[in-house]
Order: sequence, then C-alpha cells, then structure tokens
Amino acid sequence: MVCKSAEKEHPKQAFGWAARDSSGVLSPFNFSRRETGEKDVTFKVLYCGICHTDIHMIKNEWGTSSYPMVPGHEIVGVVTEVGSKVEKFKVGDKVGVGCMVGSCHSCDNCTNNLENYCPQMILTYGAKYYDGTTTYGGYSDNMVADEHFIPLEILWTRQTWLACRRSWPRWLGHMAVKFAKAMGAKVTVISTSPNKQQEAIERLGADSFLVSRDQDQMQVAMGTMDGIIDTVSAMHPLLPLLGLLKSHGKLILVGAPEKPLELPAFPLLMGRKMVGGSCIGGMKETQEMVDFAAKHGITSDIEVIPIDYVNTAIERMLKADVRYRFVIDIGNTIKSSH
Amino acid sequence: MVCKSAEKEHPKQAFGWAARDSSGVLSPFNFSRRETGEKDVTFKVLYCGICHTDIHMIKNEWGTSSYPMVPGHEIVGVVTEVGSKVEKFKVGDKVGVGCMVGSCHSCDNCTNNLENYCPQMILTYGAKYYDGTTTYGGYSDNMVADEHFIPLEILWTRQTWLACRRSWPRWLGHMAVKFAKAMGAKVTVISTSPNKQQEAIERLGADSFLVSRDQDQMQVAMGTMDGIIDTVSAMHPLLPLLGLLKSHGKLILVGAPEKPLELPAFPLLMGRKMVGGSCIGGMKETQEMVDFAAKHGITSDIEVIPIDYVNTAIERMLKADVRYRFVIDIGNTIKSSH
Repeated sequence: MVCKSAEKEHPKQAFGWAARDSSGVLSPFNFSRRETGEKDVTFKVLYCGICHTDIHMIKNEWGTSSYPMVPGHEIVGVVTEVGSKVEKFKVGDKVGVGCMVGSCHSCDNCTNNLENYCPQMILTYGAKYYDGTTTYGGYSDNMVADEHFIPLEILWTRQTWLACRRSWPRWLGHMAVKFAKAMGAKVTVISTSPNKQQEAIERLGADSFLVSRDQDQMQVAMGTMDGIIDTVSAMHPLLPLLGLLKSHGKLILVGAPEKPLELPAFPLLMGRKMVGGSCIGGMKETQEMVDFAAKHGITSDIEVIPIDYVNTAIERMLKADVRYRFVIDIGNTIKSSH
Repeated sequence: MVCKSAEKEHPKQAFGWAARDSSGVLSPFNFSRRETGEKDVTFKVLYCGICHTDIHMIKNEWGTSSYPMVPGHEIVGVVTEVGSKVEKFKVGDKVGVGCMVGSCHSCDNCTNNLENYCPQMILTYGAKYYDGTTTYGGYSDNMVADEHFIPLEILWTRQTWLACRRSWPRWLGHMAVKFAKAMGAKVTVISTSPNKQQEAIERLGADSFLVSRDQDQMQVAMGTMDGIIDTVSAMHPLLPLLGLLKSHGKLILVGAPEKPLELPAFPLLMGRKMVGGSCIGGMKETQEMVDFAAKHGITSDIEVIPIDYVNTAIERMLKADVRYRFVIDIGNTIKSSH
C-alpha cells in the first residue's frame, strides 16, 4: 500500500533503489516524481555519490528515518525539462543537487544565504516536501528540483559533487587537503597511523604529516597551527588537538561522534581558542565552493560502481575500504522494471 | 632562611601579607622590592581586590604555587617614584597593575598586543621576574612595575580594577552584565535559581532573566541568543546553552571547571556554533576596557575590608557570601612591623 502510493501519488514514473527497513539493504523500487513546476528543473540522473550519511539514514541510526527511502544527495545529471520561470538552466545543461531541496526563503537564515540552517529546510530524501509528499534522493533514474537548490557550472564527469561536507572522514579529509592546498595553506595531515604518510604527502599533496600517537612529534608541533579540521566521527580526545593550535586557533569538527566529546576548558581560556562545527553550506557558499573547485581543478578521487553493486559498496565503506568515494553510475546501469 | 632572603634580596623594604603554605591562611610578611628601574614605576598600594584566583594560588590548587606568596593582582595605588625612561606617568599619578608584569616583547603574541599569550609572560605574583627573583603581588604596602603593564587613567576610588576576567563567577557575571549593557546589548541573565531575578533586573539592569532549570522557559528561548558568556566554574551541561544560541552563535567560557565538560558535536555542526574561552587580555585590550569603563561609568559593586579581615573574607568567598568583590583597603590598614 505504501509502495503503491509512492508509485501513484505523482504523474511521472521514477525508478530507483530504496531501503525498505533498517536492515541496511537496498532493492529496486518504483515510485513517482511531480510534474516540473514553474521554478523546477527536471533531469536525468547520471551519477550519484554514496555518502556515509546515506548509511546512517538507511539504517535509521539517527532515529529519523522513514521507509521506503531512496537515498542519495550527491547527485549530478542532465536537464530534460525546465519550468516556465526557471532562469539559470535549459534542457541539456549539467546540474547537480546536494543535501537540501527546499527552505522557507523568509527567515533570518534564508535571507542571509544560510538556507542550511532554516528551521524548515527540506532534505533531499526522507523528508516532507512543501506539498506533503516524501522526498526521494539520487539513487534513481530521474529527479526534479527547485532551481534555487542547484548551483551553476557543476563539474560532473567522473566526479562527485562536493556540497556535502559532513561525511565519511577519510573522503572528507582527502577533499579538505585538496581545498586547503588550493587556498594556499600549509597543510599537515594528522593521523593515528604512520601508514598513511606516503599517501598524504605524495598522493594528496600535503606539506607534512603528524602521527597523533607519537608524543615527540606532537610535542614539537605544539602551538604551531592556525586551525584544524577534525573529520573524525569516532570518540577521540580534543586536548592534544587544542595543544597543536596557536593562540586564537580554531578546531572545527565536521565529524559527529555519537557521544559527547571531552572538552577541557583550561586550554580554551589560556589561548582564547575555539571549538566549532560545520555541516553543509548555504547555496551561496555552495556556489562559491563549486566555482573554487572548478577554477583550481579540485576533484574527488572516486571508484565508479554499477547500481547493483551498491549493497557491496556499503559493506566496503563500513570497513573503510574505498579510495575515496563510491560513485554510482546511475545513467548506464539503472534499469527500470517498468 | 627563605624569608630572610626575600627580605634582603632587594634594596627596598616592603611589607605585605603572605601565604606560607597551602593551608589557605595569610599572615604578615617582611620582604623587599627592587630599585625603580629605567622603565619602572614605583607606587604606594592603596587598594587591592581579592580574586578567586588568589584563593586557588594560596591553596596551591593548580599545583604551581611556591611559598612564601604575596597574592593580589587587582592593584591600584599612587606613584611615588618613576624611572628615567618612564613616559606615561609622574609622581602622584593613579596607577594600577593586573595579572601580569612582564613578557618577552618579541614573540608573535607580544607584537600583536597579546602579551597575555606570550610563553614567557610573567605573572604579578608567584612567578620569576627577568632577574630571577620572585614576584610579589598587591597585598603589600608598595609595588614596582614596568610601565608597559600599567594602563592609563585607572579609576580607583572604591573600585576594583577590572583587568582580571577569570574570576569568581558571580562577580564576573555582574561585571559582564554591566559591560554588555553599556555596549548596547540586550542582556539575559541565566541562572539555576529564580532567587536572583530581582537582583539581575533591578540592581544590574539586565533585560530579562532565564531559569536554566525551567524547561518551559528554556524551550521558549531556544535559538534566540547571539552569544553567551559562561562564568560557571563548576561542572555543568553545555547542551542547553548551545540550544539557546542562534546559528553561528558563540558560547564563551570564562570559568574553568577542573574536569572536562561534555561537548556534544551535533549541535555545533548543525548550527555552525562555536565554544571558545577567554582569560585576561593584552595591554592594548586592557587599555580599551579601562577607557570603556571610564566613559560609561562602569564600576564594580564592592565590600571594602581591612587587611586583617583577609582570612575571613576568603572564607566568606568560598561560601559565595560577597556582593560582589572584596577590596582590601591596603593604604589605611596595612601596618609594617618594621
């Protein structure tokens, strides 16, 4: 009954892979998409990245999931139809959609280009759209989205879209190195394991490498860093990282451990240091990021897979067995049963 | 032997009250001060505030204390002699000294007017001065200090000097309200106890009052604050305070609980919020603060005591029995045994 409803509630047929429960397994799923509205862009999905958030959501690990769920919020494709009031795109353009597809457009956050903090922000999948119907993500053959949530000039050939900052730490770390280098920063990769040194320096272009379990190395590096992007989503001590910061330095968390971290107040007071967090950006920031990535040729290292490999890919991600991002070749491998 | 050394190591006699061990009791103490150096200002101490830091230090609660110790880093007095290269002061001027009396003047922090973060910063008492001798604080009849660490235009009649931001929370809270109001902010006092409401609104001039244990009040106030200054030095949950912040809001710790606080990462990520800390400022910031206090007539509510009441005052502070600051009338009550 639920599945039938999803298939019939909108006029346009769609086909994707969905989770039916919290088991973590995806399977083929017939559903439907709305007609192209005045401000909407409809597109054929070509590629979709697999974000670790998808796994959290598929398995209902945050307790907010509803089923059936079509995941995917790193979506790129080619426009097949545009609404009468669409200004940025035409048929044949490359487009992409990230983590959100709607917001109120009138609150303080929205008017400050921070739709991502709008209390009524609508997630790309597993949420309720303005019309009350469920949103479905990019593990599907087509998609329709308000052009406001589609930045211009998406790079998409064998690349994932980079809007989702909150993600599988290793992938996020490798992107952070590339962005920081392109911004002109001196970049140190910090890892618990010395095994990653060669990869960090030679493959990613980091300037130096620091083994966080090596007390001597850590001691030498104390008070030398302006900022640290902390991509670790497991529990870990903040004190050594705060020690690496200069006065006024910032530690920015982008991984979200399930339990609270231990925050020692004294190092914050004594060095006027800050611990902050960041998730996705607003559409203005997203556009700036896409423009920056295009200008500097920043791309993600990926492994392209067919859709019927998705369940295996999820298992491999849980073992950190991917360099650095799985991207599903939707366009060539998804096959509707219609 | 140690006492004799302190009495003889410098040419000028001085008399104060000192801690001899970690028992927490002060008693009269003869020691000595250096001659007025080229850049030094020597002054007769008139008043000295009692900061909770003094109690931590007297009792060696941070494990860094050495004895005998003359505490006091909220010092005001009147100049009796100036060195040949002193530019800012002349005999008879009002002066004050805060938490620090020396720094390297050449590191990154010093050259950025942040002497307070200089790795070689010298504390006003219980530290080693450039010449290797121990520094003694303001619970004493006279003092000598480098003019660099003395701001201009100290207000001192029945007022404490406000340089030390890290302090007994209640006192700090009442100063924070006065400063924030003078800066034009809308100020809400947050307390566990509804008993303080009248005091916060009527006496301190806060705009509103929030009982942190009242779930309904807290719920209504969620997401409404740009920043929170957290003066609590006991263990306390940060989550409700983070909830009160708007997106991009900042929670600034100025109290230092002994154990790490619990920091939930999710609220930081989801609202791009920050948790920071702050202690004392550099001399430029201190001057700005003193100027601001003078312009806006910001004073601390104090209780003036004679020096021989100091041990009782410390006991009362440990019971939070003071509104809001004890200030020792050094000038009229200290009596040398010389």
